[in-house]
Amino acid sequence: MYRADLALVGFGNVARRFAGLLAEQRERLARDHGLQCRVVGIATRRHGSVFAREGVALDEALACADSGRLAAAGDACADAFEVIDRLAATESSVRVVVETTTLNIEDGRPAITHVERALAAGCHVVTANKGPAAFAYRRLRGLAAQHDVCFLFEGAVMDGVPVFNLVREAMPLVDVSGFRGVLNSTTNHILTALEDGEEFAPALARMQAQGIAEADPSLDIDGWDAAAKAAALANVLMDADLTPHAVARRGITPADASAARAACARGERLRLVATAERGSDGLVRAEVAPRTIAATDLLAGLRGVQNALILHTDLLGDVAISQLSGSLTMTAYALLSDLVAVRRTLD
Amino acid sequence: MYRADLALVGFGNVARRFAGLLAEQRERLARDHGLQCRVVGIATRRHGSVFAREGVALDEALACADSGRLAAAGDACADAFEVIDRLAATESSVRVVVETTTLNIEDGRPAITHVERALAAGCHVVTANKGPAAFAYRRLRGLAAQHDVCFLFEGAVMDGVPVFNLVREAMPLVDVSGFRGVLNSTTNHILTALEDGEEFAPALARMQAQGIAEADPSLDIDGWDAAAKAAALANVLMDADLTPHAVARRGITPADASAARAACARGERLRLVATAERGSDGLVRAEVAPRTIAATDLLAGLRGVQNALILHTDLLGDVAISQLSGSLTMTAYALLSDLVAVRRTLD
Repeated sequence: MYRADLALVGFGNVARRFAGLLAEQRERLARDHGLQCRVVGIATRRHGSVFAREGVALDEALACADSGRLAAAGDACADAFEVIDRLAATESSVRVVVETTTLNIEDGRPAITHVERALAAGCHVVTANKGPAAFAYRRLRGLAAQHDVCFLFEGAVMDGVPVFNLVREAMPLVDVSGFRGVLNSTTNHILTALEDGEEFAPALARMQAQGIAEADPSLDIDGWDAAAKAAALANVLMDADLTPHAVARRGITPADASAARAACARGERLRLVATAERGSDGLVRAEVAPRTIAATDLLAGLRGVQNALILHTDLLGDVAISQLSGSLTMTAYALLSDLVAVRRTLD
Repeated sequence: MYRADLALVGFGNVARRFAGLLAEQRERLARDHGLQCRVVGIATRRHGSVFAREGVALDEALACADSGRLAAAGDACADAFEVIDRLAATESSVRVVVETTTLNIEDGRPAITHVERALAAGCHVVTANKGPAAFAYRRLRGLAAQHDVCFLFEGAVMDGVPVFNLVREAMPLVDVSGFRGVLNSTTNHILTALEDGEEFAPALARMQAQGIAEADPSLDIDGWDAAAKAAALANVLMDADLTPHAVARRGITPADASAARAACARGERLRLVATAERGSDGLVRAEVAPRTIAATDLLAGLRGVQNALILHTDLLGDVAISQLSGSLTMTAYALLSDLVAVRRTLD
């Protein structure tokens, strides 16, 4: 049985659901995976940060964070870095930083800095943030290897549906030469709503009301979210060295309504498709753009918040994995599955 | 670095392609997974069986088997059991029986007997045969656990596209409550050919000519292949205790041509769908039958030899994995990926 001490950096919806899921799955984690977890630190942007060597009072933290009194749950810390440093200073055999701050599409910070600080201090990192893998994968992978810890980010693409863990764990020896995917739920919801005769603005508003669209809708609409996912996938699965800014990017606008409807009338579909391929020069090029595709294309069948990724491989031809529903639990589960992946490296 | 000694039980197309793939991937297997493999035994039904402690001459075996002179490749053995026993008697640290005999839909023998003999003797087993997991999973799982060895069968469903390894390795803690899938390539090819205006018999003949249809076409057409896969999936992923004979089963006939075309004309599709669900009594019921489904259903988009499996889960909602092409290499790769999975248990 391993005992893992966790510091939650970022304490929004995903981290809170993760904390709940951790409690719900406590027995199975211990029985099936020999893992006991305890949250010893929480860092928030607006409600302070705390650390408690013997574990924070999580119920209290969940209640307090809303009212700005998180401090009651442990010793006050100046910021996320102090929480990480205090975790690193413990003698716990398994120290994990769970990073769930929001994506900064400019340069991926401060998430990258949190990850760097944690890895360099010998802590494992699991994150649902796309930034670290999209902006700095090679450096962080090297740092993790140097300190013999894990850097995992299953939640960066398609929530908890396995993509990175799928290829790493279940497709050994397979070379990924490219991919095509529908990776952004908000734009796919809007495009299918347009096909059904709805208008752009109310379809977007519904995604925002449901908490599925990013707070800044341009991250979704302008293709930034899909571009960050494409960069992360290319970096990890194809050993590329891209950032989201290197991904050729075109999003969707209300003007695409007529194109979506015309495609549908022709028996085709308009989808925001992310692609990557390795050129004859060995370099990986990635792109996000609305594409008209045949109705028989697996991506055309994706409606609403559904996502899918088609991997082009050498030994398995084209393989697709599809996320047919979406929920906060699925994103939180991504962190939990990464935690189990960390556990598997410990024997 | 681990050195694995392999005995190939069954030496048809899949095993021969596996032998080739093993040679092609030798360097990556050693570099990425610390595994060196050597084939020390081969058992065939019609061309004799051989064992050679220091490794059979594989090139010679590949050439000889066709001409019935396999004996030149090593010491003659009476049958598969003697090959397995001789492998088990070696002091190799990693002994693996690679079982690729054809499915016997009556009772899964002799594949089950081969697997039993190997596991009981402390050898790992990887197999592309559906029989063992479809007819005797619980018993063989227990036997493997008792002798602390692996019993793996990724190739039993969707060739090398990960299904069993996907759930076991990349979806920890997830409970599978049911599934729907198109799992048989021959019938799916025929149904889509019917949609395109072709006739049943020539579409079947093409699958047989390509070596995709089973030698006995009734295994495909009558739904037995899909039923065996459904039983294996239910047994492994849902802890059921089914055999293919317990799966409610209806195949396809030339009379389904009009239903396939009528569905298509209505914007729907006819597909041979395998399903399983757990009833309120806790028992798992599985079924294979032609079903009319909406064109937007992920299964409706599968054409030709494409397969897909939709898993109903607690933590991840519905997740689908799709095989978008098919080849002998993909089946052979299934055995290779299982071999890597065996390797991962050795540290």
